[in-house]
Amino acid sequence: MMYGATFPLLRAAAPDWHAFTHHPFVEGLKDGSLPRAAFLHYLQQDYVFLIHFSRAWALAVTKAETVAEMRACAATVHALLVEEMRLHEGICAEAGIDLTGVEERIENLAYTRYVLDSGDLLDLLAGLMPCVLGYGEIGARMLREAGETPYRDWIETYGGAEFQQTCAEAGALLDAATARRIGPPGTGPRWPALCHRFATATRLEVGFWDMGLRP
Amino acid sequence: MMYGATFPLLRAAAPDWHAFTHHPFVEGLKDGSLPRAAFLHYLQQDYVFLIHFSRAWALAVTKAETVAEMRACAATVHALLVEEMRLHEGICAEAGIDLTGVEERIENLAYTRYVLDSGDLLDLLAGLMPCVLGYGEIGARMLREAGETPYRDWIETYGGAEFQQTCAEAGALLDAATARRIGPPGTGPRWPALCHRFATATRLEVGFWDMGLRP
Amino acid sequence: MMYGATFPLLRAAAPDWHAFTHHPFVEGLKDGSLPRAAFLHYLQQDYVFLIHFSRAWALAVTKAETVAEMRACAATVHALLVEEMRLHEGICAEAGIDLTGVEERIENLAYTRYVLDSGDLLDLLAGLMPCVLGYGEIGARMLREAGETPYRDWIETYGGAEFQQTCAEAGALLDAATARRIGPPGTGPRWPALCHRFATATRLEVGFWDMGLRP
Amino acid sequence: MMYGATFPLLRAAAPDWHAFTHHPFVEGLKDGSLPRAAFLHYLQQDYVFLIHFSRAWALAVTKAETVAEMRACAATVHALLVEEMRLHEGICAEAGIDLTGVEERIENLAYTRYVLDSGDLLDLLAGLMPCVLGYGEIGARMLREAGETPYRDWIETYGGAEFQQTCAEAGALLDAATARRIGPPGTGPRWPALCHRFATATRLEVGFWDMGLRP
Repeated sequence: MMYGATFPLLRAAAPDWHAFTHHPFVEGLKDGSLPRAAFLHYLQQDYVFLIHFSRAWALAVTKAETVAEMRACAATVHALLVEEMRLHEGICAEAGIDLTGVEERIENLAYTRYVLDSGDLLDLLAGLMPCVLGYGEIGARMLREAGETPYRDWIETYGGAEFQQTCAEAGALLDAATARRIGPPGTGPRWPALCHRFATATRLEVGFWDMGLRP
Repeated sequence: MMYGATFPLLRAAAPDWHAFTHHPFVEGLKDGSLPRAAFLHYLQQDYVFLIHFSRAWALAVTKAETVAEMRACAATVHALLVEEMRLHEGICAEAGIDLTGVEERIENLAYTRYVLDSGDLLDLLAGLMPCVLGYGEIGARMLREAGETPYRDWIETYGGAEFQQTCAEAGALLDAATARRIGPPGTGPRWPALCHRFATATRLEVGFWDMGLRP
Repeated sequence: MMYGATFPLLRAAAPDWHAFTHHPFVEGLKDGSLPRAAFLHYLQQDYVFLIHFSRAWALAVTKAETVAEMRACAATVHALLVEEMRLHEGICAEAGIDLTGVEERIENLAYTRYVLDSGDLLDLLAGLMPCVLGYGEIGARMLREAGETPYRDWIETYGGAEFQQTCAEAGALLDAATARRIGPPGTGPRWPALCHRFATATRLEVGFWDMGLRP
Repeated sequence: MMYGATFPLLRAAAPDWHAFTHHPFVEGLKDGSLPRAAFLHYLQQDYVFLIHFSRAWALAVTKAETVAEMRACAATVHALLVEEMRLHEGICAEAGIDLTGVEERIENLAYTRYVLDSGDLLDLLAGLMPCVLGYGEIGARMLREAGETPYRDWIETYGGAEFQQTCAEAGALLDAATARRIGPPGTGPRWPALCHRFATATRLEVGFWDMGLRP
C-alpha cells in the first residue's frame, strides 16, 4: 500500500494528518484522561456521522463501475450499518442515551455532506479514505502504546485485526479504482484535486475531534 | 399488505400487471417450453439488470431518512449482489458463458436507468416495487401450477420462502415510507405520479420479457 | 406569501431567523462600521458560496417535475452565475483580489454541501430559501434604515426591486411546489423535517456571518 | 475540433453514426417525403426529450469543476428550456396539440435516462454529445442538400449559424473538460468506457428516429 494511490494523498495532507491522528482527543482516549461526558458526546455525534458515512459508501455502490467495486463498497455499508453502529447503540443504551434525538453539530454535518458531494468513485473515495485509514492508524498505534484506560474497547475495535483488514481492503479498492480511471498513482491531471479533497476531509476530521472536546 | 400502499399502485397498473405476470416467457418457464437459448440469453441480460438494480437499492440507502429504512435497503443490496447474482454466475459458468462481456440490450437499459432517475425514497420505491412484487407473485403461482420443467430451480428461487419473505419486507418498507412522507395510502397529491411510475416500470417489465424471447 | 408555505418554515426558525437577519455583520454593513478587510473577506467566501449555491439551483432543475418549475429554477441559476457573480468579480478585480485561489472556509462548505444533499425538490427548496428570503428581508430593511455607509451598493443590490422580485418568485415557486407534492402548507407528515431543514440552513447563515467577521 | 476529444469518440461510433445522421427519418425531412403525422409525433416526443435533456445539462452544471464549465452548461440549459422548447410549443400550439399530456415512448425514455445516469462531467458529456454534434452535422448537410420541403424551418434551425455555434462551443467544452480530467484525448484508461457511452447514445439516437417513423 505504501507506494499505492494513498501515498500521494497522504503526502499532500501531511501536517493535517498528524494533527488528526495525534489529536488531544485521541491522546485522551489512550491515557484515559478524556472525560466520560466528552466520550459519550463524541459517541452520539459519531453515530450520526456513521449514518451519513454509510450513505456515502452506498453512494459509492451507485458510482462503482465493476461488480468487484460494488461488492467492496456494499460490504463496507454492511459493516458500518450493522456492526459498527450496533456498537454505538449498545454503549449508549447502557448509558441511558436515546440516539434518535441527537442534534447534529455543524462540524459533523460539514464533514459528511462534503464527502457526499462528489464526482466519480475516485473523487468520493478521496473523501472517504481519511476516516478509514486514519482510524486504522490511530487504532494500531494506540494498541501498541496505550496503558490502563477505560477506553480499551474503543482501541481494540479500531486497532483489532478486523478493522485493520477493512483498511487494507479500502486501500486495495482505492488502488484498483485509480488504476481503472487514471493509471499509475500520481500521474495525470487529477491529482491536485484528489489531494485537495483528501486534505480537506483530513482537516474536517481535526474539526470533528475539536468538537468532541466541547460537549 | 392488501390495503397498504401497494394497493393503489397495483390497481393503477392492472392491465399491464397481468401482461407482466402472465407473459409467454413466464408460461414457457412454467411448462418447460421456453428454449434453453432464450433462458440463457435472459439470464445474461438479467445479470446486467441486477447490477443496476443493486445500484438503485444502494441509491435507496442514500435517500433513506431513518436507520430502519437504511438497513432494509442495504439488506436488499446485499441479497442482490451476493446471493442472487452468485446464482447467475453459477449457472452461466456451468454453461461456459462469460458474463463480463454481455452487451446490455436497450429494453434492459431503459428499465434500470428509468428507476435510477428518481426523486425521494418513495418515488424510487415506486419504480423498484414491480420487479420485487411481480417476481414474488409469479414465483408463488408457478410453484403451485408448474409441472415437469427444466426451470424448476428458477421457480423455487422466486416461489420459495426466502424470496417471499423479501417481498413481504419490501411491502412493509413501502408502507412505512409512505406513512412517513405522505400519510394514509391514496391520500395527498402525489399518488397520480407514483402510480404512473409504478405502471411505467410494469410496462418496462413486459418489454424485458419480450426481449427475453428474442436472443 | 404571508400564509403560504414560507409561513410554517419561518415560524419554526424564528429565534435563529432574527440572529441571521440582525447579525452584527449586517448592522456593520448598515452603519458602515464593518472593516473593509472583513467585507472583502466575506465577498471572496460569498463568491465560492455562490458557485455551490448555483450548483444547488441547477440540481433543482434536475429535480423539478414541471416545465414551469424547471424554468423558474434555471432562471435563478442564470441570475446567480451571470449577474450576481459578475458583481463579485467586478469588486474583487478592482480591489486586486484573485478569486480563483480562495480557500473555502469550513462554515462556508458546511452550508452549501448541506443544501446540496437533499431529497425531492421541496426538500432542496427548504434548504435554499433562507438565503434568498433572508437577504431579501435584510436588503429591504437596510434600504429603509441605512444612513451614510460605504456599503450602499450592497444594500441597493439586495433591497432593490430586482432582487425583491426574485424573492417573490422564489416564494411562489415554493408555494406551487408544496401544493403539487403535499397540499396545503402545514398539513401532512413532512413539515417537521422541512422545518428542521429550513432552521438548520438558517443557523448555517448565522455561522457564515460569524465567519465573515473573522478574516 | 477535428483532432480534439470528439475524434476518438466519433471514430468508435462510426457505423452507428452514419445510421443516425443519414436515417430515413432525416432523409424524409430533407426531401419532404416525411408524413406530417410522423413529424408532429416526433415533435411531441422531442419536447419530452428536451425536458430530460435540459435536466441532464443542469446536472452537468452540478458536476462542473470550474466557473467556465458551469457557465457553458448553464447557457445550454437556457438555450434548450427557453429557445428550443418555445419552438416546439409554438408549432404544436398552431397544430392544436396539447404538450402536457404526451405519453413518453420507451425509446425516448431509454435515451435520456441513460444519459442522466453518469459519473463525472466527462462521462455525462460523452452521453450528451451525440445529440448536439449529430443534429449539427445533420442540419449543416441538409442546408446544403435540401430542395423544396415543408420542413425547411427545422433544417434552418439546426443548420443555422446559432446552432452551429452551439456545437462548436460544446466541442470546446468537451476538449477543455478532457484536458482537465484526463490530458490529451485518447490517452489514459478511460477512453474505452467513454467511447462505449458515446456509441450507446448514438444507437439510442437511431432508436429515436425509428420511433419517430411509428406514430
